[in-house]
Amino acid sequence: MAVNSPLPVASELKPVNGIDIGFAEAGIKKPNRKDVLLMKLAEGATVAGVFTKNRFCAAPVQVSKANLEAVSNGGKPIRALVVNTGNANAATGEQGLQSARTTCEEVARLLGIDAQQVLPFSTGVILEQLPVQKIVAALPAAVSNLKQDNWFNAAEAIMTTDTQPKAASLTTTIGGHTVTMTGISKGAGMIKPNMATMLGYLAFDAKVAQPVMNELVRYAADRSFNCITIDGDTSTNDSFILVATGAGTLSIDSTDSPDYIALRDAVTGISTHLAQQIIRDGEGATKFITISVEQGRDMEECRKIGYAIAHSPLVKTAFFASDPNLGRILAAIGYAGIDDLDTTKLDLYLDDVLVAKAGGRNPDYKEEDGQRVMKKAEILVRVELGRGDANSTVWTCDLSHDYVSINADYRS
Amino acid sequence: MAVNSPLPVASELKPVNGIDIGFAEAGIKKPNRKDVLLMKLAEGATVAGVFTKNRFCAAPVQVSKANLEAVSNGGKPIRALVVNTGNANAATGEQGLQSARTTCEEVARLLGIDAQQVLPFSTGVILEQLPVQKIVAALPAAVSNLKQDNWFNAAEAIMTTDTQPKAASLTTTIGGHTVTMTGISKGAGMIKPNMATMLGYLAFDAKVAQPVMNELVRYAADRSFNCITIDGDTSTNDSFILVATGAGTLSIDSTDSPDYIALRDAVTGISTHLAQQIIRDGEGATKFITISVEQGRDMEECRKIGYAIAHSPLVKTAFFASDPNLGRILAAIGYAGIDDLDTTKLDLYLDDVLVAKAGGRNPDYKEEDGQRVMKKAEILVRVELGRGDANSTVWTCDLSHDYVSINADYRS
Repeated sequence: MAVNSPLPVASELKPVNGIDIGFAEAGIKKPNRKDVLLMKLAEGATVAGVFTKNRFCAAPVQVSKANLEAVSNGGKPIRALVVNTGNANAATGEQGLQSARTTCEEVARLLGIDAQQVLPFSTGVILEQLPVQKIVAALPAAVSNLKQDNWFNAAEAIMTTDTQPKAASLTTTIGGHTVTMTGISKGAGMIKPNMATMLGYLAFDAKVAQPVMNELVRYAADRSFNCITIDGDTSTNDSFILVATGAGTLSIDSTDSPDYIALRDAVTGISTHLAQQIIRDGEGATKFITISVEQGRDMEECRKIGYAIAHSPLVKTAFFASDPNLGRILAAIGYAGIDDLDTTKLDLYLDDVLVAKAGGRNPDYKEEDGQRVMKKAEILVRVELGRGDANSTVWTCDLSHDYVSINADYRS
Repeated sequence: MAVNSPLPVASELKPVNGIDIGFAEAGIKKPNRKDVLLMKLAEGATVAGVFTKNRFCAAPVQVSKANLEAVSNGGKPIRALVVNTGNANAATGEQGLQSARTTCEEVARLLGIDAQQVLPFSTGVILEQLPVQKIVAALPAAVSNLKQDNWFNAAEAIMTTDTQPKAASLTTTIGGHTVTMTGISKGAGMIKPNMATMLGYLAFDAKVAQPVMNELVRYAADRSFNCITIDGDTSTNDSFILVATGAGTLSIDSTDSPDYIALRDAVTGISTHLAQQIIRDGEGATKFITISVEQGRDMEECRKIGYAIAHSPLVKTAFFASDPNLGRILAAIGYAGIDDLDTTKLDLYLDDVLVAKAGGRNPDYKEEDGQRVMKKAEILVRVELGRGDANSTVWTCDLSHDYVSINADYRS
């Protein structure tokens, strides 16, 4: 179903020293389905994360943020992550917070650590209380099957309406040290159609100081998970978590080291791959669209324009229809909120086809050239603003009948 | 097709003294279709307008703005409006501007006025040159059928993919003077699916000074046409024009007069009605949704939240499905960009049903109550922010399969 996105192969997902993975079937929403994921981290691991900016951010997001902050303030390190699907535990008030804490306490009891050393995550329907006792009951099973070589199961355990699991893995050499990194993601999925919650977890076996991790997770997120959109709906539960298990030989204490740059670029690369898998498996997606906005004054204005194009229902339906109705892209650029945009300096390309030149139709543009590109499953929209050196890329998908069907189905 | 929006009755659309209306079939995109509208204004008429903020604003919008500005700077008054459908004349560069000017020159020649006294408007496909000679050839026919009692034809002449004409009319008494006002609008329509261009024209027979008109058009637009959204796509051609023909006995020179307040409220009322007709006839619309955001710090933050809800594809598909998946509304509120929003002070109502209380699910809320409201064709979403006295209303429709079908059809 996903656009040019082959199924991950379990044997190609490399175990990462210092992180054990377990899973369970708690029956949170449906029986006989992996819906609890447990990740146990080695002593010495460092963890950093970025979270949704939604003001209705879910209870587990609030707890995870607080527990990570405690570490930065000298608290004990994070030693476990626990994820459930089937319920987002969002807009659930004090009871929801207590449920998230209870989950952490139970993980802590089973692993012999403190509850503050556990980060909880949830995804699924919102405005409903978490059935925390089902999770508590299932956790011993997850503990009992903890092992390093469990990444494919982990990718499956966080799926909701994703049509396939999403994972990536690589081994690289940095400063003479071998580093193994493996990650999973989910998105565009709902157990009962609800919201396109995005979750991403990426672990590698280097030893990285906490301040470096905090910098690294932002850098990678800004160039990967923060560059994708399916429908513009920011979930209450979005989270991207980076784990340095410390179990390998590479050690990084400062963002000034060349090893940091190499690690940063590897992490960004694999994060981008994980993020793009979410778009390729977007609800109802039939096309994968890359929007590159170039020659802007700053990255922020390029991103604004990229998102205006990516969120336009008119642009998205035109891609679905393979209809080179490209004035819609210009209109989206025009309302992106760049008040001093000089449209007479703007060029628009579809792959290699120059559609609009100096803000008007390119005299040499032929509809059949636009049509040829629009029929492809992967399309590059390139906007040259002619006002600076900044650029930004956004990845998105089209808007199809299946998107409406998936999200208009009753949550039964 | 439109949601609770009966067809206007031609005989109920009152002629307005001081404005004559003509139309023609220019065959711009399709033959045998009214696609040119001409409105001739009496001497002494004043005109004001608000226009799209899209940076790719169409050539006729640029000319109309310049011609209106010339009046405010002491130029001759506006004496005619000319509208074509079938082509938006947007992203058409210098040639497009020349085409808009040629249209004005021809109207001016036929009516014996200056080209600067004509406001041109276009709606239709963008990125294609206006077939201006077809318009020029059709204008004499429009001149020859100019008459006051032609408002229904006017409403038909500006339709694109609108399923029905949109018009409203009323007679009221202000300060002892009878005032007649009649208006038309179009929207959510495309000759070949392109953009939801909105056009609105409202005329009344009072005499109103230009500075008062400039104030009045903004006031009314901010409470009517600027409160609607179908898909969040701001057109390159949106325009709302107010005409005071000066042919009646009421005369207003200052915004301080009680007569101004009465006129303002009447104009705002009928503008709202015209704007709502656009939503009721929105592409694929099956429901009419009123989103009232109350108790905000200022109108701007209320509007931000209203639009976040109104633009969310997830909220819109839930309305289409009559699915009380109301966490989606909270999520949209959460990402609306109010950084200091305290969700624990927020209540959410669906009609009279209290769904969320203090940011969490209302313990007394029952799904069947939400279901009952969601099945209706007209739904009120009411958000109480608990942080101030400001409020704002946005009107929108649902997102249905028909929306995708209409906009994914190839422009043949």
